[in-house]
Amino acid sequence: MSKLPNVTTSIFTVMSKMASEYNAINLSQGFPNFPVDERLTDIVAQLAKENVHQYTPMAGYPPLMNKIAKLTLSSYNRTINPETELLVTAGATQGIFTTILALVKDNDEVIILDPSYDSYESPVLLCKAKPVRVALNDDYTPNWERIEKACSAKTRMMIINNPHNPTGKILTENDFIKLKNLLEKYPDIIILSDEVYEYITFEEKHISAHTKDFLLDRCVMVSSFGKSFHITGWKIGYTIAPEHLMKEIKKVHQFLVFSVNSISQFAINEYLDVVDVNLLGKFYQEKRDYFQKLLQNSRFELKPCEGTYFQVASYANISNEDDVTFCKNLIIDHGVAAIPISTFYSDHKDQKLIRFCFAKDNFTLESAAKKLSQI
Amino acid sequence: MSKLPNVTTSIFTVMSKMASEYNAINLSQGFPNFPVDERLTDIVAQLAKENVHQYTPMAGYPPLMNKIAKLTLSSYNRTINPETELLVTAGATQGIFTTILALVKDNDEVIILDPSYDSYESPVLLCKAKPVRVALNDDYTPNWERIEKACSAKTRMMIINNPHNPTGKILTENDFIKLKNLLEKYPDIIILSDEVYEYITFEEKHISAHTKDFLLDRCVMVSSFGKSFHITGWKIGYTIAPEHLMKEIKKVHQFLVFSVNSISQFAINEYLDVVDVNLLGKFYQEKRDYFQKLLQNSRFELKPCEGTYFQVASYANISNEDDVTFCKNLIIDHGVAAIPISTFYSDHKDQKLIRFCFAKDNFTLESAAKKLSQI
Ligand SMILES: CSCCC(=O)C(=O)O
Ligand SMILES: CSCCC(=O)C(=O)O
Repeated sequence: MSKLPNVTTSIFTVMSKMASEYNAINLSQGFPNFPVDERLTDIVAQLAKENVHQYTPMAGYPPLMNKIAKLTLSSYNRTINPETELLVTAGATQGIFTTILALVKDNDEVIILDPSYDSYESPVLLCKAKPVRVALNDDYTPNWERIEKACSAKTRMMIINNPHNPTGKILTENDFIKLKNLLEKYPDIIILSDEVYEYITFEEKHISAHTKDFLLDRCVMVSSFGKSFHITGWKIGYTIAPEHLMKEIKKVHQFLVFSVNSISQFAINEYLDVVDVNLLGKFYQEKRDYFQKLLQNSRFELKPCEGTYFQVASYANISNEDDVTFCKNLIIDHGVAAIPISTFYSDHKDQKLIRFCFAKDNFTLESAAKKLSQI
Repeated sequence: MSKLPNVTTSIFTVMSKMASEYNAINLSQGFPNFPVDERLTDIVAQLAKENVHQYTPMAGYPPLMNKIAKLTLSSYNRTINPETELLVTAGATQGIFTTILALVKDNDEVIILDPSYDSYESPVLLCKAKPVRVALNDDYTPNWERIEKACSAKTRMMIINNPHNPTGKILTENDFIKLKNLLEKYPDIIILSDEVYEYITFEEKHISAHTKDFLLDRCVMVSSFGKSFHITGWKIGYTIAPEHLMKEIKKVHQFLVFSVNSISQFAINEYLDVVDVNLLGKFYQEKRDYFQKLLQNSRFELKPCEGTYFQVASYANISNEDDVTFCKNLIIDHGVAAIPISTFYSDHKDQKLIRFCFAKDNFTLESAAKKLSQI
């Protein structure tokens, strides 16, 4: 008997595999296809010859941890203690899993918004806790009334994802005010804030949950260098939490991976001296604008995108197929791979919407848009 | 309320930290201090410039998986299907944790031998299952009678570690016969075999659990390139299991890390073309013999060591202190760090024994032995 009976092959695996089988342009799984910054690859090449190959300390390579604290200070004017409030993880996924496993107990309830990225429910189920899905509004903003109705004494955690994958929505100051009001009534709820796209926002600036005073004592923030430095394969992320929660997260981390890839940590530590993460938003904003322009004469209807490197599009003008079928046929008939939005919903209901990843070089975006515009 | 109330800072963290504070020679935590093979670091330096920075597939980089299957064939004459029976993990620790989480349910019992490496109990506790510790014989061989007495209908898993950390013992053909007889009576018990030191055995050849026909359908074998290639910091391991178990392990892996550091996987894939793992046993046997010779006139009494890079030593002739105190004073008074064996026992009872790691360059072994011989 499986502990995760409903888990099947991830849609990201299915679509990336199908894209390569059909030699389609892969705008499905979220990863950049352009070269990594040469300054970073130079650092790796040079470090390889140095003494960087043995265990780093359990919670992370200390100079990198100091550098992350500095980054947090300069980005958000938020001071963290790297020794007690920070953990370097094998990607954000490990940060999320470890946090849930450490803090959620059997029979607890965990609020997960709907739609959501697909990796929140399974760790909750493995804890024998109950995921409580709450639908976002039609414009993908959180519906705070519905969220409040879903809260109870059993609610242990609420998972938010800001900027939001797949919809590209970001939370506003007003959302945080609503959250504050809500949490005043529920002193035991912890916020797990998945902010892997923290540096990829456009017109509006990102508001990080761990900068809010009312959240300081009850928020676990998870992020990743994979998205910020175009190195999704490296699997180096970090988790910020108040000491009383971090203590428990570290206990699980110690047995879950013990420590994290050393060379990558050494390299990111050096790279943080030269890279300016604040350029990332502009970089991806240009990609978004370019991709939107390329598609403006297509029959796809593009949704607003405030952050992330994902563009949601409606194909309702084109086809009546459900979105999974549409995506499969899009690969087979038109050579472009995307992700059906239904997969982010707990009930997998067809949404007539698909998600394109625009973290691609311009040639790829142009080639894809050409195919998509001919439909 | 903590889910792991009894977990404190790992002894490996404590001792490595204390060693560096007191500038002691660190023979505590198990990691090599000599340079990594230049062929491997050259590969990393060259690969850094290539397209190796994005997500590898969930279960691992396919060429590396094929290479691991080839290695398994040449080392053990055992054919595995890399697509269905293999998973690349963020170190053996992640393989162990993921396997336990995927396969052990609440109220199950899991047999763990005593003494044991410290990372088996906590994942069992996180599953709300019960670790059942069974003492090894005085010579650290498994006591199959006691093990059989500890088995019941509730027993879901037995964890073995071969070669054994910290004692350096390896399992014999006779042990596997006893295991076979036992398992005939308990068709539902799964063997989790931690074989991270599989290539570090000396007079006797290592017998890998997953080569035994009677275990094929019920054995999960976990190993790591960290020990075999002197790259403990890379955190790249692998898990081999029959398809019906691997299916469940992969489900958890997908949400626990999704995938594993890409550059490291690409590099090990290339390195496996040129490295001969069968030289490793001889390499460490020479280290063991040299270290033993250096200590032959000391007052430490050295225990037999059949595998691993650990040497257990009795200090009963030297001091009456408990082994934790002895190790601390050894750092402070004599500048050498070791690990107290009591920490590997469930009851932490003093053993008057300590563990030295001899995966060090000869100069380090000589310097340490000089200090140890003056006691
Ligand atoms: C870990 S695979 C999924 C990558 C991703 O973040 C996405 O495509 O949404
Ligand atoms: C993961 S830290 C422990 C390293 C090790 O294998 C040991 O020293 O026993």
